[in-house]
Amino acid sequence: MESPGVPVDRIESLVSLCKRRGFVFPCGEIYGGTRSAWDYGPLGVELKENIKRQWWRSMVQGRDDIVGLDSSVILPKQVWEASGHVEAFVDPLTECQACHRRFRADHLEEAFEAKHGRPPQPDLSDVNCTHCGAKGAFTEQRMFNGLLKTNLGPVESQEGLHYLRPETAQGIFVNFANVMQAARKKPPFGIAQVGKSFRNEITPGNFIFRTREFEQMELEYFVEPGTDEQAHDEWLQARWDWYVGLGMNPDNLRFFEHPKEKLSHYSKRTVDIEYRFRFGGDEFSELEGIANRFDYDLNVHSQKSGVDLSYFDQEKGKRWTPYVIEPSAGLTRSVLAFLLDSYTEDEAPNAKGVLEKRTVLRLDPRLAPVKVAVLPLSRNPDLSPKAKQLASTLRMSWNVEFDDAGAIGRRYRRQDEIGTPYCVTIDFESLEDDAVTVRERDSMKQERVPAAEVPGYLAQRLVGC
Amino acid sequence: MESPGVPVDRIESLVSLCKRRGFVFPCGEIYGGTRSAWDYGPLGVELKENIKRQWWRSMVQGRDDIVGLDSSVILPKQVWEASGHVEAFVDPLTECQACHRRFRADHLEEAFEAKHGRPPQPDLSDVNCTHCGAKGAFTEQRMFNGLLKTNLGPVESQEGLHYLRPETAQGIFVNFANVMQAARKKPPFGIAQVGKSFRNEITPGNFIFRTREFEQMELEYFVEPGTDEQAHDEWLQARWDWYVGLGMNPDNLRFFEHPKEKLSHYSKRTVDIEYRFRFGGDEFSELEGIANRFDYDLNVHSQKSGVDLSYFDQEKGKRWTPYVIEPSAGLTRSVLAFLLDSYTEDEAPNAKGVLEKRTVLRLDPRLAPVKVAVLPLSRNPDLSPKAKQLASTLRMSWNVEFDDAGAIGRRYRRQDEIGTPYCVTIDFESLEDDAVTVRERDSMKQERVPAAEVPGYLAQRLVGC
Repeated sequence: MESPGVPVDRIESLVSLCKRRGFVFPCGEIYGGTRSAWDYGPLGVELKENIKRQWWRSMVQGRDDIVGLDSSVILPKQVWEASGHVEAFVDPLTECQACHRRFRADHLEEAFEAKHGRPPQPDLSDVNCTHCGAKGAFTEQRMFNGLLKTNLGPVESQEGLHYLRPETAQGIFVNFANVMQAARKKPPFGIAQVGKSFRNEITPGNFIFRTREFEQMELEYFVEPGTDEQAHDEWLQARWDWYVGLGMNPDNLRFFEHPKEKLSHYSKRTVDIEYRFRFGGDEFSELEGIANRFDYDLNVHSQKSGVDLSYFDQEKGKRWTPYVIEPSAGLTRSVLAFLLDSYTEDEAPNAKGVLEKRTVLRLDPRLAPVKVAVLPLSRNPDLSPKAKQLASTLRMSWNVEFDDAGAIGRRYRRQDEIGTPYCVTIDFESLEDDAVTVRERDSMKQERVPAAEVPGYLAQRLVGC
Repeated sequence: MESPGVPVDRIESLVSLCKRRGFVFPCGEIYGGTRSAWDYGPLGVELKENIKRQWWRSMVQGRDDIVGLDSSVILPKQVWEASGHVEAFVDPLTECQACHRRFRADHLEEAFEAKHGRPPQPDLSDVNCTHCGAKGAFTEQRMFNGLLKTNLGPVESQEGLHYLRPETAQGIFVNFANVMQAARKKPPFGIAQVGKSFRNEITPGNFIFRTREFEQMELEYFVEPGTDEQAHDEWLQARWDWYVGLGMNPDNLRFFEHPKEKLSHYSKRTVDIEYRFRFGGDEFSELEGIANRFDYDLNVHSQKSGVDLSYFDQEKGKRWTPYVIEPSAGLTRSVLAFLLDSYTEDEAPNAKGVLEKRTVLRLDPRLAPVKVAVLPLSRNPDLSPKAKQLASTLRMSWNVEFDDAGAIGRRYRRQDEIGTPYCVTIDFESLEDDAVTVRERDSMKQERVPAAEVPGYLAQRLVGC
């Protein structure tokens, strides 16, 4: 299933590009770093923000039935007791007695089953350690809670114990009544939130795919019971269309229906949208989970808080607790998926006309960190001021880079590699005819455009940016 | 110094408006809530996002010399050991032995001095508890570290101990070399970041002014030593201009120069921009701190990490460590300042032409959560579809509200109260002449505009939104 032009070790190529060009840096690298946390550099922060903005436009600003929210990371601990996280947000942990590395037992089991077509022995006595290779050296499994704890107030105490949120969703449920009233909405309506969540992952890894600190884009869409199944189907389609609409190759996406017997206690049905990340043995991995949580959350919070979170349906003259459909997307996972999906290698002629390897991020212009690069052909007292002036005009509308260092071909390569859709070159002819060359990233086609028409020319091609 | 049209208890009026209209809700209210954490509702999240976007446009996208970053909340702990936070990020804590409430001793001292014109006794024996009134009942002061701790990994251990960042700045310093190289910048240049920080505040309070979880907008601007004082002055002016340019009344702002003898160990000079929040006894409080941190941070991180964070100046043929100017603004404080500053009460005629009290948020249109409200005069099978169609056209460009519930006067009042700059009313005449009424928030002036021209009419007036 290898796509043309994509190397097999593309994750490694991408990690390297990300660091070199400033998308993603290893967190705290000067102190030895870690492979489990990452910082977003100048280009990464723009890409991430662009994805977030497209999601917000599509989910909140473009619709009349969804409003936004930004709740706290540290909520009262009763929230996590009620939601079941304190008790049930646990994973089975085991340790290899040979190398003392810790693993999630369920991950070891899944990997074994994928390889051998059957589940391993319950005590993992037939499983090899993926780190040191020792066979059957695993300790007995114990359950491990994934909530990160912190202590508020001056004294370490039970009273001061709090949790960092492992999902943004609960912040939405506990604000349900306040939002519904203040925004004067009634079901069907939704509340959307983007923000950081924290999980004490035992085995973070696969670059920015699984990290202890990550960002989510979550929607809770409240509907009348009985209309929930149709709403679920509609959201499955809408979320699929969102990814594809932003240029993701549908061949790299698939739906994964969670088996009934493996559903979480809060789920009536869950379908994931998976992306072909191709980590190790796994072809596809979760990008977004879309769950029908029925009235589980509003019910438990009603019961535990004593505040009635049901809705009085005036038209029907009766009271019911809304069901909720939850499209929960990973923002940082989306960054990785869009990067992988747009990463291609093809060929372009160098200065001597010889074909050379070219790396291109074929990002949708709405997602590209830089929309336009302005490149004077050379550093020159006539060209530079003219180019700088054009850059500063374009900067009023878009994120623009100005680059006058080195050979023009190398500068094109650099912009291709960071996904810049348009390069504008000012050359010596420009001083005569007041026109410039606009080059498009994917086709590498060049067009001569009068300088004064450049903003309009680009505006037509950068719609929605 | 009371401005006309602003009630003295305006903080309370504002807290009430914020909850009622959906700007800010008490965090976890259904579980009894807390006065120390707040969630941002549908309008609050838009306002906060608009302030952030204006900052980002002004600091990053509008300039060629500043790039963005988004570093982790949880950095390696060596970062906080090197920066001095583990040792020196401490406040003096005292407890009233009568009511057992805890206070920051320095806050009690400042309040005493502001009231009595002289500092209190060192043991606070002449100070009354601000909660229960008991005099001189305070315990001996002890130092208390403001870092919030958490534990990563499955075992509570010294190795797993980590801190939540109390400022975004250190994430910038430790990424300095990676950013400079990837973005191919050289001093003078800056790195900007917006994000959450966490502090274990002993006395959170004053609504969203001081909370344990808050958002910052920080810039570290790296310059050649010797040019730092001029750069500092330029940033003082630039940041002042930013607030005023977004409509803040300059009479409510002032500079506060930190006395030399009270400067932090990392500061050569610090000047705050203060806003007239008028909390209790304090007329002005800090909105943004602008510090000259000289080469303190890059030096300590070079020493502790062993990675050289100096810069080789090719033009001058020598190596130096940049000085840094740090304009550090509170995003959540800015939300409060812009709300307070725009909060006004005046009078408007009701349906019978009688003047009634009107509350208006005179927010700059770029900051207003909703840019346009579309209001059909009444719920009607002819008016409603036409109005909905217009709303959905306008929604392609801006955040739009559609409202067809209740008397038109009340709907205007509601939009005034949330700061919506323009209301578009579709009435029965619209069905004949295909024109609508556009009403401007502050002047309440109404203008008849052909329906087809409304997007262009508004675009002229909503520049930069």
